[in-house]
Amino acid sequence: MTETATARRSRITPEREAELYEAVLDLLREVGYDALTMDAVAARTRSSKATLYRQWGGKAELVVRAIRHSKPGRIDEIDTGSLRGDLHALVRLEDDCTIERNSALMRGVAMAMHNNADLRAAFRSQLVEPEMSSFHEVIRRAVDRGEVRPDCPALDFLLHMMVGGFATRALLDDQPPTQEFLTSYIDAVVLPALGVPTS
Amino acid sequence: MTETATARRSRITPEREAELYEAVLDLLREVGYDALTMDAVAARTRSSKATLYRQWGGKAELVVRAIRHSKPGRIDEIDTGSLRGDLHALVRLEDDCTIERNSALMRGVAMAMHNNADLRAAFRSQLVEPEMSSFHEVIRRAVDRGEVRPDCPALDFLLHMMVGGFATRALLDDQPPTQEFLTSYIDAVVLPALGVPTS
Repeated sequence: MTETATARRSRITPEREAELYEAVLDLLREVGYDALTMDAVAARTRSSKATLYRQWGGKAELVVRAIRHSKPGRIDEIDTGSLRGDLHALVRLEDDCTIERNSALMRGVAMAMHNNADLRAAFRSQLVEPEMSSFHEVIRRAVDRGEVRPDCPALDFLLHMMVGGFATRALLDDQPPTQEFLTSYIDAVVLPALGVPTS
Repeated sequence: MTETATARRSRITPEREAELYEAVLDLLREVGYDALTMDAVAARTRSSKATLYRQWGGKAELVVRAIRHSKPGRIDEIDTGSLRGDLHALVRLEDDCTIERNSALMRGVAMAMHNNADLRAAFRSQLVEPEMSSFHEVIRRAVDRGEVRPDCPALDFLLHMMVGGFATRALLDDQPPTQEFLTSYIDAVVLPALGVPTS
C-alpha cells in the first residue's frame, strides 16, 4: 500500500471498512465482477460514489481489497514448527463451507481478469505478491530448520502448486475443494515436490 | 462415445467434421461460450441447425468435441522410454503460440462451465475422462519400468498437477504458459512428486 492510499483509507473506521468490503463481496457473488458497479456499491453501503473513488481509486482495487480483507489470516502468522504443520493449519483456517464459497468467488474473479488489465494489476499487487511474501517467510523457516533445501527447484512454483490444487478441483472433479482434499493434495504433491517427507 | 453417437456422426466426412470444429473454435474465440449460438455455427458452416443437433445433440457436446479434435495427439501415443521423456514430449506437441491460444480458449470455457451443468458434463466425459485414461497408460508403463511406485499418493493428482501448472501461469504471473515454463514445472513439481529423479 502506498502512503497516499493509507492516508486516504484512514479517513474511515475499520468497522465501516469491514462493512463495505462485506457488501462488495455480497454484490460480487450476486452479479459477478463485470456487472458490479460503483453505483450499486454506493447504494448498498449508503456511501457516495465520490467517497468510494477517493478511498479506493476504482472498482478493481476495491474488489481485490475486499477479497484480501476476507482472508482469515496470513500463513506467515502460523508457526507450528514444521512446514507440514503450517500448510495443514493454513487449510484449516477456513471451514469447507467457506472454502466452497470462496472457490466460486475466486473463479468468477479469475474469469473477469481475462478481460480486465486493471483487475489483473490489482490482483497481482494486492493478492499475489503479499501471498508470495507470506509463503517466502514460511519457507525461510522451513529452510532454517533443514526441512527444505534452499535451492529446491519446486520453490519457484510454490504458489502455482497451492493455487493449482485449489483451482483444478472444481474444474476436473466437479466438486468444491475441501479441507480433506487440500490436505491430501499437500501431502501427496506439495511436500514431496519440496523434498519434505510426509511420514 | 455411444454407438448411437458414432452412427450419427458417421454421416458426415472427416474433412467436413474437421471444418466444422475449426469454425466452432473460431466462433468460441470471437464471442465466448455463452454468446455462441447454434444459429451462428450453422451460418458460419453453411449447415442446417437440424443437422448440427442431429450430429451433436447440442452446443455443449459440439464445443467440447471441437476442443478435443483440436488436440494434436494423445499422450499415450507418445512412448519415449521414460516418464520424463513422455511428459516433455507432450509439452512439445504444441508450439508456444498454440499453447497461448489454447490457454485463452480453455480459460473462457472453464469460466462458462461455472454456470452450465451440461457443459460440465460434456467436458468431463469427452475431455477429462479420456485424458485421465491416456495418462493412466503412460503411468502404467512408468510403473512397469520401475520409475514410479504403484502406490505413490501423487498418482491420484496427476491431472490436477498437470492442469494446475498450465492454468495458474496466466493467473499468477500474468504470462501465458510456454514450453519452457511447463517443462521446468514438470521437472520441479510433477516428477519429484511422483518420486522420479530428474537428474
